[in-house]
Amino acid sequence: MSVALRELHAAFGGVLHGAMDRAVARLAPLAAAGEDALSFVAHPRYRTALAASRAGVVIAPPALVADVLGRADPPPGGWACWECPDPYLTFARLTQWWREHVQPRPRRAGVHPTAWVDSSAQVHPSASIGPHAVIEAQAVVEAQVDIGPHAVVEARARVGAGTRLGPGVVIGYDCVIGARGIVHGGTIIGADGFGFAPAPLPDGTGREWIKIEQLGAVRIGDDVEIGANCCIDRGALGDTVLEDGVKLDNLIQIGHNVHVGRHTAMAGCVGIAGSARIGAFCTLGGGAIVLGHLELADHVHISAASVVMRSILQPGQYSGIFPIDDNRAWEKNAATLRQLHALRERLKALERRTT
Amino acid sequence: MSVALRELHAAFGGVLHGAMDRAVARLAPLAAAGEDALSFVAHPRYRTALAASRAGVVIAPPALVADVLGRADPPPGGWACWECPDPYLTFARLTQWWREHVQPRPRRAGVHPTAWVDSSAQVHPSASIGPHAVIEAQAVVEAQVDIGPHAVVEARARVGAGTRLGPGVVIGYDCVIGARGIVHGGTIIGADGFGFAPAPLPDGTGREWIKIEQLGAVRIGDDVEIGANCCIDRGALGDTVLEDGVKLDNLIQIGHNVHVGRHTAMAGCVGIAGSARIGAFCTLGGGAIVLGHLELADHVHISAASVVMRSILQPGQYSGIFPIDDNRAWEKNAATLRQLHALRERLKALERRTT
Amino acid sequence: MSVALRELHAAFGGVLHGAMDRAVARLAPLAAAGEDALSFVAHPRYRTALAASRAGVVIAPPALVADVLGRADPPPGGWACWECPDPYLTFARLTQWWREHVQPRPRRAGVHPTAWVDSSAQVHPSASIGPHAVIEAQAVVEAQVDIGPHAVVEARARVGAGTRLGPGVVIGYDCVIGARGIVHGGTIIGADGFGFAPAPLPDGTGREWIKIEQLGAVRIGDDVEIGANCCIDRGALGDTVLEDGVKLDNLIQIGHNVHVGRHTAMAGCVGIAGSARIGAFCTLGGGAIVLGHLELADHVHISAASVVMRSILQPGQYSGIFPIDDNRAWEKNAATLRQLHALRERLKALERRTT
Repeated sequence: MSVALRELHAAFGGVLHGAMDRAVARLAPLAAAGEDALSFVAHPRYRTALAASRAGVVIAPPALVADVLGRADPPPGGWACWECPDPYLTFARLTQWWREHVQPRPRRAGVHPTAWVDSSAQVHPSASIGPHAVIEAQAVVEAQVDIGPHAVVEARARVGAGTRLGPGVVIGYDCVIGARGIVHGGTIIGADGFGFAPAPLPDGTGREWIKIEQLGAVRIGDDVEIGANCCIDRGALGDTVLEDGVKLDNLIQIGHNVHVGRHTAMAGCVGIAGSARIGAFCTLGGGAIVLGHLELADHVHISAASVVMRSILQPGQYSGIFPIDDNRAWEKNAATLRQLHALRERLKALERRTT
Repeated sequence: MSVALRELHAAFGGVLHGAMDRAVARLAPLAAAGEDALSFVAHPRYRTALAASRAGVVIAPPALVADVLGRADPPPGGWACWECPDPYLTFARLTQWWREHVQPRPRRAGVHPTAWVDSSAQVHPSASIGPHAVIEAQAVVEAQVDIGPHAVVEARARVGAGTRLGPGVVIGYDCVIGARGIVHGGTIIGADGFGFAPAPLPDGTGREWIKIEQLGAVRIGDDVEIGANCCIDRGALGDTVLEDGVKLDNLIQIGHNVHVGRHTAMAGCVGIAGSARIGAFCTLGGGAIVLGHLELADHVHISAASVVMRSILQPGQYSGIFPIDDNRAWEKNAATLRQLHALRERLKALERRTT
Repeated sequence: MSVALRELHAAFGGVLHGAMDRAVARLAPLAAAGEDALSFVAHPRYRTALAASRAGVVIAPPALVADVLGRADPPPGGWACWECPDPYLTFARLTQWWREHVQPRPRRAGVHPTAWVDSSAQVHPSASIGPHAVIEAQAVVEAQVDIGPHAVVEARARVGAGTRLGPGVVIGYDCVIGARGIVHGGTIIGADGFGFAPAPLPDGTGREWIKIEQLGAVRIGDDVEIGANCCIDRGALGDTVLEDGVKLDNLIQIGHNVHVGRHTAMAGCVGIAGSARIGAFCTLGGGAIVLGHLELADHVHISAASVVMRSILQPGQYSGIFPIDDNRAWEKNAATLRQLHALRERLKALERRTT
């Protein structure tokens, strides 16, 4: 199956140059694209990749249009260049068009006969409830919602219009997710937060942990996407909150009472400890950790694998990563690092002696 | 719905001061508490927060009682102060009372019609088996157990009295969990440990991995709580063990043959590699990693994101975290860190030269 | 139940010495093995453990045979030594024999009555489909496949002969896993990769994220084992690929378009960001992170908790771990580390002054 370039162009605008009557059979990255593929180039720094590409159609920014059109070795059908001010964004929207028109995601229609829907739950007739899904008492499932196999919407929880829950997703009791959200498979929203008070053991050897019941819930805004196998804990007393437009990758831990501001994005394996407050428009790289009760201002960017141990109130990029090295070099440097303070004292002494 | 303060006080004791006939509609943190709320303050360092709070009732230690009662600006109904020697612990117990009497967790009664229970399994009549749950051959489910939707108790596994399994939890074949436990959704207990022996490939390019079948199981004591989407692997030959009172947060990895001593607690995203032996009364901060075959003594505390690379046999607090900094400063320090050993040698040379 | 040593020996070869007519009731590690147990010792460095062991049978390399046979204190039935050139490998194969003959894994036969199999799916008659499993339209399940309870094989996905999926595993639409694979419980294969293009918000406060639909799939080779609660994302345009013989532990994140070469192994909690290319025969220690778009050559070994921030094109062992220390020492060293570049400048100045 292929789509006329003119049809795609009609949907998104921009200026077409070159072989305007091409057909597009697939979307592909620049390096892998053949003559039947549409690709994109966003930055002039990919000029070399562009020169080597075999793509039949390339979405390019104005600064690169001449490069595409002037290529020495066009494919038999000729090159097409689709000039857009923001090629990456246009390409993103194009993938959505492609998903809808060419490569639709399999969708389960209606309430599957194996699903269990409590008689007091409200399920909109346009919603789809997958095999073995469970909708508990007084839960609300709005229009066009797509509930995957084995997903669970617990008592009194609410799933907003157009939201899609992957296989095995759990929306805990009293929790809410807004409209147009996506939650990928295995993610648990509304498990208990991790809260215990220590109580001395009678034998004096140590203390046991007394559970603090987690009486809050989770509130998630609109247009939020959450990856697979994440955990968003319910609040201890108040709620854990993800604002509109938040995007979380896979295997992310959000502790109880955390507040994540709108349009903040976190890459895989991030952990946010309880009661942290993350601003809007932040990004956290993969494996980053934020300790409890800290605050990150809006527009703060944390590099991958960095550990936030104090509040960060100024926008900017922050990092804390031990540089990787060959093992021998690392061993020597790590051993020295354990004496770093002493080295500093020796340097100080030396400075005093030589002045 | 609200509860008379006197009723709560009757359940837990301590000394009531001030407006003793107040009603409590909710439990809330000090900063968010209104006149209808009960809150607590544990440490004198929260004196300022206490002064600013609007809470109608505050549980406070003796040292702060005068502060509560002497507040300049009491709400219309007047303040109440509930004096307790350990306010945090009393508050924890109060949340349990609240959960039971005011805000009960939705509970599924009996064996759900969609659950699958093998005819050779023993399920106590007081146990609750959720929708689509699976209880396999010869499994044992004791009294008052609550098995969530899609949870699986595999062959010959045993779930102790009063234990609650969240949605999708798996208790693997031959594994045991004791009484009064909680396992949150998506946690897999008893998957195979990660064990392989290398075997050279015939073509000499490298080696393949030959699986070591994991013939042990997992044994979990009483009063253990395990968060969501954790993995507790079965032992290779012997068993993986979590002793009584252990508390694990979400997304924690416990490798095969690990032994965790009683009342040890681990925050989210911790990873314990195979055959490590963690003592009793330890704590591990979020994202901490313990390498395989190591030993931690009782009462060892590991800071978040720290990597334990050698056994720690003395109680205490241990840390190893690269300090976060603005990206420019980090880059310069990290680059220098890669030459740290050389710097030390230069310092040494300088010291020799100047003495 | 016990097995004659001669029967085991007949299956695997090697040279038997000592009490050759012993029976073996269990496999056990050297330290825990009693007279009825078979154990192994792989390296001469375990000579002391060997001397103290009570095992009735020990698989040992030639260099240690004399040590076993010459033991001063044999059990009543006498020692047996099973001489093999690679005891660890023989032991691994022995665990497989033991699993098959003595301690078989519970297996569910046929299609469980509660499973849901779409009428257009192809399920081989020898395959086993567990309780509440879901096989969607046009999926293919080959011979001897074992699909656990609540596992889902989505539309058009394919599961190769002899592969076993644990409880709740998801093989996403269009994804493929080869023959003889094992995927442990809760692992999600084929969730969307994490791809978004930024688009400025009209109010000028920041940007929102526009989803890039993930149009690729996941292709997994033969003999691949994947632990519990992992995430292997589908590619954005092309596919995410795990080659033959790859072994992944639990809670591992593999981003979209990652390519993992054959026989590479990763320990728990590893995260590989999108489009990284990991070579063959690599190992990654627990919690290691590889940033996006990087390349690791074949035979590269990354230590636990290390962060790969640049491509590594030479085989070898690489590390980057902040050394753990008692908290006081760490605090002083970490504080100094934040001035490390300045210290280097001071040292340089001093060197200039003193020469």
